[in-house]
Amino acid sequence: MNIKQLEKDYKSFENKEVTIKGWARNHRTGKNISFLMINDGTSFLTVQAVYKDLENKEEINKLHIGAAVEVKGILKVLENSKQSFEIAATSINILADSSEDYPIQPKKHTREFLRENAHLRVRTNTFNAVFKIRSELSYALHKFFNENDFLYVHTPIITGADAEGAGEMFQVTTLELDDVKKKEDGEVDFSKDFFNQSVNLTVSGQLLAESYALAFSNVYTFGPTFRAENSNTTRHAAEFWMLEPEVAFAELEDIISLSKNMLISAIRHVLDKCPLELEFLNSLVDYDLVKRLEDLVNANFKEIDYKEAIDILNEAIEGGHKFENEVFFGVDLATEHERYLTDVKFNAPVYVKNYPKEIKAFYMRLNDDQKTVAATDLLVPGIGELIGGSQREERIDILTKLMEAHDLSPEEYDWYMQLRKFGGVKHSGFGIGFERLVMYVTGIENIRDVIPFPRTVRNCKY
Amino acid sequence: MNIKQLEKDYKSFENKEVTIKGWARNHRTGKNISFLMINDGTSFLTVQAVYKDLENKEEINKLHIGAAVEVKGILKVLENSKQSFEIAATSINILADSSEDYPIQPKKHTREFLRENAHLRVRTNTFNAVFKIRSELSYALHKFFNENDFLYVHTPIITGADAEGAGEMFQVTTLELDDVKKKEDGEVDFSKDFFNQSVNLTVSGQLLAESYALAFSNVYTFGPTFRAENSNTTRHAAEFWMLEPEVAFAELEDIISLSKNMLISAIRHVLDKCPLELEFLNSLVDYDLVKRLEDLVNANFKEIDYKEAIDILNEAIEGGHKFENEVFFGVDLATEHERYLTDVKFNAPVYVKNYPKEIKAFYMRLNDDQKTVAATDLLVPGIGELIGGSQREERIDILTKLMEAHDLSPEEYDWYMQLRKFGGVKHSGFGIGFERLVMYVTGIENIRDVIPFPRTVRNCKY
Repeated sequence: MNIKQLEKDYKSFENKEVTIKGWARNHRTGKNISFLMINDGTSFLTVQAVYKDLENKEEINKLHIGAAVEVKGILKVLENSKQSFEIAATSINILADSSEDYPIQPKKHTREFLRENAHLRVRTNTFNAVFKIRSELSYALHKFFNENDFLYVHTPIITGADAEGAGEMFQVTTLELDDVKKKEDGEVDFSKDFFNQSVNLTVSGQLLAESYALAFSNVYTFGPTFRAENSNTTRHAAEFWMLEPEVAFAELEDIISLSKNMLISAIRHVLDKCPLELEFLNSLVDYDLVKRLEDLVNANFKEIDYKEAIDILNEAIEGGHKFENEVFFGVDLATEHERYLTDVKFNAPVYVKNYPKEIKAFYMRLNDDQKTVAATDLLVPGIGELIGGSQREERIDILTKLMEAHDLSPEEYDWYMQLRKFGGVKHSGFGIGFERLVMYVTGIENIRDVIPFPRTVRNCKY
Repeated sequence: MNIKQLEKDYKSFENKEVTIKGWARNHRTGKNISFLMINDGTSFLTVQAVYKDLENKEEINKLHIGAAVEVKGILKVLENSKQSFEIAATSINILADSSEDYPIQPKKHTREFLRENAHLRVRTNTFNAVFKIRSELSYALHKFFNENDFLYVHTPIITGADAEGAGEMFQVTTLELDDVKKKEDGEVDFSKDFFNQSVNLTVSGQLLAESYALAFSNVYTFGPTFRAENSNTTRHAAEFWMLEPEVAFAELEDIISLSKNMLISAIRHVLDKCPLELEFLNSLVDYDLVKRLEDLVNANFKEIDYKEAIDILNEAIEGGHKFENEVFFGVDLATEHERYLTDVKFNAPVYVKNYPKEIKAFYMRLNDDQKTVAATDLLVPGIGELIGGSQREERIDILTKLMEAHDLSPEEYDWYMQLRKFGGVKHSGFGIGFERLVMYVTGIENIRDVIPFPRTVRNCKY
């Protein structure tokens, strides 16, 4: 029996014998009575085993924190206690002891220390909660899309395509780095490389997801993406998961609505499935967490044009508000601007729409004003940008011009142009950085603490 | 309204007006009456729109296969017809035309041709069925593990670890390949590389999943894995998805039982959700498909020791059966051996257990006979190996010896050894190549045809 099963149904086990297996989180021995705290990770709950005289008392007394144990005993339902139940142990069997130098002792450890012990940090309450929520969030997203008849497509990780202007890429090769052969013209001889060409790690599955949307109507891709950006901040990782839905016959308003429903559905799922985890994080990590999540699922999401956003920010400046960054039509909104809109002006999540084409990607649909594109960013209170989406340019002549303006060659994207030529109906999609969402839902502020084994500049431990 | 919704509930729409959007799969025009076949990919069903005189008849007559259309009309329920319903169209609106050179015409195309058009091949029945089943299988697996209280852990793609003897790896780098700087000793200077060290693409998430199992008890990882193996066969891809559950407090028998339940649950899900897709594949790709799947979910899975398998094969030889490959204790079973066990001897799926340690990986638990390890392969009729699992060696002294026998250095796996030192209870897990499973469930024989954009030797198109 695991602790999850006990947690769900402890009343039916009252005064009955139960057996659990788990790891010792804490151990307080007394003359008459001793306490062993056991967690098996299936539940956030750590169960207290109370024992007096046991046959192997001496052995148990020497047990180290972190040891794996099997506890048999009678389940006692508790009144007026923080815990709902405990186990009056009749036997404690040490399955695998730990050691004195076990790093995860029952005391406060710094996040930095725990990061260095990423293989053990999930034995703490904080990381147990974070990675449980990460897992449930992932499941909630799959469930939402499956139930809405979306096809899940695994777009490739290794890509022959260029960066699409989305940032620095990692190169993948089987060439011997200490002996790279070159051709007569001095260029690298990729005929010796596995793929017979230069290849990279993907930065986005969107373009390929479009080809699936134009066959299946509703699709999403959800997998690892990569940026070789030399940014050592709390929000950048070289490897992170991205969810990218793509919908045929859909305009910008349709995916605004879809992304809103998705977000509410995923957060409801976590509120429902992880109350203990959220309560813990709320008490220690982010005192505003649960309120923020509950506010979001009940919020009136605002929608404003980028131009309105600029007007609001300029009014704020006239009213005496100071921003560090300039405000003008054409500026890429800074975090302080986004926070002003969500936290000060509206106190609600805000979809900002129709951005100037110059600050957005080549594939976004040009609006009739010829100046803006049908793009949207969802800004949420306390975080800023959470989702970015757009209607895609389906008109081949305009797409060609947009590509050229972005220094991209339509010839190299022949298959992508073909999607427009052969029944290339309007379609739209969005992307959400999964770690950003996990940070939002857990209140954790460093991306390194929501990725099991994070990859960042100069750090690829494990 | 999408075709999936119509398919589910067409009777309630009888003689009512409906509107669908989709792509023209076929078009037969007649003097009096014409037929337009429309598919939107949400359902396997292609819907027939029947029309006579329409305002834009001339325009419709010139429509190209592949065009996106919007059809409005009255839904007619059909009796004595292959189709359950059709639409008597009152208007057909061309949303985006196609072109004469559209490659996916209503005729038979070779798989090779379609592979060259991977961005369009999903507009055929075969690939619509294959990728729908792939999506549903993936969902079924997530659902199974979530409902059984397993935590989903995203193990990393970029890894600092070595190959673990699992095959050739791809190297990941940001060094300029045409100008790789070296240190004074002639070695590559990785201090200029993004991670300040040599890194690769993962071949398996198992070792890291073990660290999560020893905190959460039940976990699984499911993501892309990579092999730079120079094998140009129908069963090898450089990039493929792998599912790897890992369970603490579990012995070999526990994960045999888990993998069996998982497999039955996933296949039941597809039988339930994809009847049209399976029927189609059964009629054109693999005439034995549905029977094989139904047999599997009802099968008595056999379990035999590797030694018994060798005895059975030797008896077969004595009885006159010819194998191309030798049979002796210590041999790695060849496909012909596996097929004999599943298809001839047992006519059932077979778990072969307790293999000689020499032919298995270093982390598998040594049995008391000192000769075999607690490993198992599931062999299934018609396919061969589908799942490979083992109990992991949790005894640090034996693990050290096994690593040394495999030329691995325990020092380099310090964190992995620590898992044994600190509450390293027994645990077990298995791996299943997801594409292998998709091939099994669709009857498709070439791995290139079950991966959206396959990566193989000298091929990284898209």
